[in-house]
Amino acid sequence: MSNKVLEHIAWKEGKLHLLDQRLLPQQTVYRICVSVEDVVESIREMYVRGAPAIGISAAFGMVIAAGEALEKGLNEKEIREYLVQAGEALNGSRPTAVNLKWAIEEAGHWLASNENLSPQDIYRGLEKLAINIFEEDIINNRKIGFNGSALVPQRATILTHCNAGALATGGYGTALGVIRAAVEEGKDINVLVDETRPLLQGARITAYELVRENIPAKLITDNAAGHLMSMGKVDLIVVGADQIAANGDAANKIGTYSLAVLAEYHGIPFYVAAPLSTIDLNITSGDEIIIEERSPDEVTCLNGTAVAPEGMVALNYAFDVTPAKLITAVITEKGLAEKPNREKIASLFEA
Amino acid sequence: MSNKVLEHIAWKEGKLHLLDQRLLPQQTVYRICVSVEDVVESIREMYVRGAPAIGISAAFGMVIAAGEALEKGLNEKEIREYLVQAGEALNGSRPTAVNLKWAIEEAGHWLASNENLSPQDIYRGLEKLAINIFEEDIINNRKIGFNGSALVPQRATILTHCNAGALATGGYGTALGVIRAAVEEGKDINVLVDETRPLLQGARITAYELVRENIPAKLITDNAAGHLMSMGKVDLIVVGADQIAANGDAANKIGTYSLAVLAEYHGIPFYVAAPLSTIDLNITSGDEIIIEERSPDEVTCLNGTAVAPEGMVALNYAFDVTPAKLITAVITEKGLAEKPNREKIASLFEA
Repeated sequence: MSNKVLEHIAWKEGKLHLLDQRLLPQQTVYRICVSVEDVVESIREMYVRGAPAIGISAAFGMVIAAGEALEKGLNEKEIREYLVQAGEALNGSRPTAVNLKWAIEEAGHWLASNENLSPQDIYRGLEKLAINIFEEDIINNRKIGFNGSALVPQRATILTHCNAGALATGGYGTALGVIRAAVEEGKDINVLVDETRPLLQGARITAYELVRENIPAKLITDNAAGHLMSMGKVDLIVVGADQIAANGDAANKIGTYSLAVLAEYHGIPFYVAAPLSTIDLNITSGDEIIIEERSPDEVTCLNGTAVAPEGMVALNYAFDVTPAKLITAVITEKGLAEKPNREKIASLFEA
Repeated sequence: MSNKVLEHIAWKEGKLHLLDQRLLPQQTVYRICVSVEDVVESIREMYVRGAPAIGISAAFGMVIAAGEALEKGLNEKEIREYLVQAGEALNGSRPTAVNLKWAIEEAGHWLASNENLSPQDIYRGLEKLAINIFEEDIINNRKIGFNGSALVPQRATILTHCNAGALATGGYGTALGVIRAAVEEGKDINVLVDETRPLLQGARITAYELVRENIPAKLITDNAAGHLMSMGKVDLIVVGADQIAANGDAANKIGTYSLAVLAEYHGIPFYVAAPLSTIDLNITSGDEIIIEERSPDEVTCLNGTAVAPEGMVALNYAFDVTPAKLITAVITEKGLAEKPNREKIASLFEA
């Protein structure tokens, strides 16, 4: 599924159209964001999810903010102040996806390096930047796919967790980009999809992408991954990332760390596929990554119905951190960081 | 919750009353089994689950079979043949829980060692045996609890998977028996409960038992266990078993193996609590254990609603095997098998 086929993010006449991914695969409903608050809520409530897709949405959120400032008739200085506040609001919508922070910083850099702008110039400049971030993301994912596919044998069963696919990005996907590229190169690929509790992005979204493209895939509970590895039924694992620290430690959907430990135990390669925009060189190591805790209701309820008894408390960490030592390679648009460490991550930015 | 408080298995006037555990915690509905076929279906469809509880139900299933034979006016020889067939039907209801096979063998042994019986003698003898298996199970679980509690520090966070509680057994529980005993001894215990996809026995049943007894507990997704271990928030893990081989390899709910690997990686003790009736000395190692595959619908649907897209295939292994080398100790009513192996398992039967 290219972004062309299913427009999960679309910028139309100053409005951001976001496919409501919470309702997939049963319903295809769009939320039309006309205010910064709409974008903040869409990110926080996970209408849109996946670090790169969140970054893209935030970039358009900044354009919408510029539009709001225009309508208010603010002058350039006031617009710049308004945009700083909008950036902070967007940044606060979710804590772990670093592409969010990155996209807002990109807007900030553009504003800082362009002075004496008319309000219209600001709007058009930010719009051009957002579209560029969107388009670049898809291009980068194709490069990630190409670079990652080189690591995939001619015949392989690949396990993935959560959704690091077209819908988590501008299009094509990171982890699913690697799988797509391998399939496009004619390799014989089978995919094992972790359902990925609590929000089931694997069962709902990754499965949706793979079924649409007729890529052979089987859904499993997260509990079954270890068993399948022990039976020799997993050749490699590839996941996305929400944030990668300067030393290569990677935050991703809760359960990723368990997979990495299991992969290590079974001698199975464990790959993290992500664009450079997911790497935050200001974060020294995984210890500094903020792990979002979400509502316990995501664990205690299914489809809005309580499964746990009344009075049962739940913990709901949305992410975990996989240390670099458990990662066989980080796959980026600039190439691989095999056995990632501080130097190898830094060198990606020099490539 | 003792068995007295919530009668999940009750034998009343020749009928087996089984709490429908599929509906917990929302509904408390009983299925009244009046035929062998009722019992077979109740085991297969998981009205009753948990290896010891399945064994107890099967023992009563044999009594019901004797009652059916009585009603048909069969003679002793015909009754014995009828009971062999009933035993085979019960045995085929689920493949992994060895207590099922064990309970039917116990009935077979009793029949083999008692000749020239009236039909009424057969009925009363099997009834006495079933009640004895039921009562012994609770007594054994208290012993398992006592033996296991000796391994629990004065203050501990204990992670458990699935439900190896009162409801999985005659009462008191195996893994939860260890937790109950530690609490009864005044230890400061917190429990982390894996929700245990696909059928959520952790979220539905273990949580239910713990909330009823005010034992401090938090529910987590199965994905969160590794993250919590990496944060040093798990002191020990205790689970039940559906079958233990002669060498100490243990089959238990899918996901148990992953926990054992994670425990090994983090240096966390990993205990399996089960009665001797769960150990099958005829099974040489875990390689011989038959792993039940259940309907893919358990993975693709939640509360009867599809979560995965149409056309998505799912694998649904109900159990996995944890090799003995990953088990710190098997906790039984006859004591511990620490670092279990063939000799230590055998010696439990000599105790």
